[in-house]
Amino acid sequence: MTLNRRKMLTGTALLATLSQKSKKSEAAELDIPSWTREPGAPILKKAYGAPSSFEKDVVRRTWTKMRGGQGSTLTPLASLRGIITPGGLHFERHHAGVPDIDPAQHSLVVHGLVSQPMRFSLDDLHRLPSVSRICFIECSGNTGTEWTKATRADVQSTHGLLSCSEWTGVPLSYILGETGMEADARWVLAEGADGAAMSRSIPLKKALDDVIVAYAQNGEALRPEQGYPLRLICPGYEGNMNIKWLRRLKLGQYPFYTREETSKYTDLMPDGKARQFSFTMGVKSVIVRPSGGMKLTSPGLQEINGLAWSGHGKITKVYVSTDGGKTWIAARLDGLILDKCLTRFTLPWVWNGQKAILQSKAYDEAGNFQETRQILHARYGDNLYYHNNGIQSWLVSETGDITNVFI
Amino acid sequence: MTLNRRKMLTGTALLATLSQKSKKSEAAELDIPSWTREPGAPILKKAYGAPSSFEKDVVRRTWTKMRGGQGSTLTPLASLRGIITPGGLHFERHHAGVPDIDPAQHSLVVHGLVSQPMRFSLDDLHRLPSVSRICFIECSGNTGTEWTKATRADVQSTHGLLSCSEWTGVPLSYILGETGMEADARWVLAEGADGAAMSRSIPLKKALDDVIVAYAQNGEALRPEQGYPLRLICPGYEGNMNIKWLRRLKLGQYPFYTREETSKYTDLMPDGKARQFSFTMGVKSVIVRPSGGMKLTSPGLQEINGLAWSGHGKITKVYVSTDGGKTWIAARLDGLILDKCLTRFTLPWVWNGQKAILQSKAYDEAGNFQETRQILHARYGDNLYYHNNGIQSWLVSETGDITNVFI
Repeated sequence: MTLNRRKMLTGTALLATLSQKSKKSEAAELDIPSWTREPGAPILKKAYGAPSSFEKDVVRRTWTKMRGGQGSTLTPLASLRGIITPGGLHFERHHAGVPDIDPAQHSLVVHGLVSQPMRFSLDDLHRLPSVSRICFIECSGNTGTEWTKATRADVQSTHGLLSCSEWTGVPLSYILGETGMEADARWVLAEGADGAAMSRSIPLKKALDDVIVAYAQNGEALRPEQGYPLRLICPGYEGNMNIKWLRRLKLGQYPFYTREETSKYTDLMPDGKARQFSFTMGVKSVIVRPSGGMKLTSPGLQEINGLAWSGHGKITKVYVSTDGGKTWIAARLDGLILDKCLTRFTLPWVWNGQKAILQSKAYDEAGNFQETRQILHARYGDNLYYHNNGIQSWLVSETGDITNVFI
Repeated sequence: MTLNRRKMLTGTALLATLSQKSKKSEAAELDIPSWTREPGAPILKKAYGAPSSFEKDVVRRTWTKMRGGQGSTLTPLASLRGIITPGGLHFERHHAGVPDIDPAQHSLVVHGLVSQPMRFSLDDLHRLPSVSRICFIECSGNTGTEWTKATRADVQSTHGLLSCSEWTGVPLSYILGETGMEADARWVLAEGADGAAMSRSIPLKKALDDVIVAYAQNGEALRPEQGYPLRLICPGYEGNMNIKWLRRLKLGQYPFYTREETSKYTDLMPDGKARQFSFTMGVKSVIVRPSGGMKLTSPGLQEINGLAWSGHGKITKVYVSTDGGKTWIAARLDGLILDKCLTRFTLPWVWNGQKAILQSKAYDEAGNFQETRQILHARYGDNLYYHNNGIQSWLVSETGDITNVFI
């Protein structure tokens, strides 16, 4: 049953001139490296593992100047696979640094227009029904620097305010069922215990839909940078609404107009008015390999590999172009395709050694699709920064060098 | 819209004697802790994150004595949520320690009954079509100590040779399509580059079905303890067949009868014969919370929470008993229910302060279900150690203390 497939071989044919069944040839094929000649490192009695030292450059990076704990770090998307972001590489966006919270002293207060104000300790929450789901979190400012021109060199810098985890906690609908709600309650204020007391108003309708009071991320307790010991998860909503170090939920009749939804996180339109409460992250995608800063070392088979996501639901299609948008080919959606979750797409590509412009364009189940940056820019003007979900373009030169270009 | 639900309250009612709308009462509810009064820790320019220091006891542990890198560590199942095991907590089973492999010097040789022997570097493999899937790995010796009596105190020790990750790599079927296969090829020898040259024979039919040559785990490169830079993933098969530090695949007509499938990893039956090639892990489940070593501090609402899995496919049902198997209630299967993957189950339970025996019993889509240890013991005799998938029992005493019991 010899398979005669298309020969897009990447491996090296071994010993083509020798019989493949010769014992001698097999020995020659299989040199014994030093690490096979003696036992490796012993295991530790109590340990929390770490990546290989050969992966030391796969880290979060930042291009912001730190002031009083204000800043962000970026996920190294080009090095990641699948849809899970390891906890150690989840992007960060802090308004007053990372508090070091003792979970035994932390609690969640639920008050305002409720029937019975209540306080929940961590132990209380662990006794309530739990749910887990995998979903992305994207900062609304992700790719903001690329609104009017191509500025940053690589995909970690252009799109790295994006990560995806399995989150576990108590449905907020269950907690509000315990406290009861007044008839005129329409909004929920969520407030963090960090020095910024980061706070946002969330529609009660959303709160009762799919919001989770989360205490775990990728199986373990939340990481400190992700809100340990409690974080609100608002699937599909802009990152800052997923309030970290959650300490308070207050029900009210109207939005609370916190500073984060008046002076910040609004979108200035061409007519001078600001779009407010732009909660849901639009449909978006990006090719992460090959991408800016990489170099193709030889013509031949490559895998074009990227991520697509939408705050409106599931991804339905991703198209890829290698000629700057003139022609498009449907990519394969790999593995799980989940609601408000990163979806991996792949496409085999034989690079012919010529100039190419790589693009991807995602579609979601709500009928949304990605547009070019030029179209979005023409529609929304110069001032937009948040919610840039335009198509990303990577230029592959004849030398194989890849750069970020604005199209 | 006040919801008057069953009041299985775990939280604390706040200020019942004051008006809930009083400003004064709200201030009293919300003391300002020290970590809200000043900025937290700044973020780092280049960083790989770590868990909170308050989680320092959530680590892998071992009860084996280390000899020449031989041993295992256990995943802290009682502390984990959802289905993903973080890389730092994935269980370990090594036969010669953890080699420190330079990926630039590592390659995979595919030879034997192939049309064209080939060598694949990591770069080669990264250019081939990739797939990701979430699946469990369980050591065939998991729970072996519990075959004839209850020996270990907690679920980390009884069931901790079990973890679940998102794995990414190249389908082995694709690689064998590149090398071609001879007509009489039926088995694949997989060999690791560790000092034990750990090796197992895998049916070619399985190899062409769903086996992956994996280079990534939970989004990032494989962890050193999990086979960095290459590992074979054989979904549903016993852990040791998921060969780590993979360096060689050889196709042959017959099994290779390595020491791991002759002197080890066989199952001695009552008639003195040994069951060989018992690849597939049976359907199994365990309650992880509450579980051995924990203490219930007060009667009232608890969440019974556990994991179910099967090497034969998807989990279809899990039943829970709180009276040692006299009566059973269907648990809720939470979140994703995937092929050959951990599945989380939950059931609310009001503990009345009396003695209880907690058990779970899983069913899979192939029609298999878990039996009691007594039944399995009677069927297979005293000598079995591997492939114990019997029902686990936890005894809750009237004081709330929980112990491991054999039923």
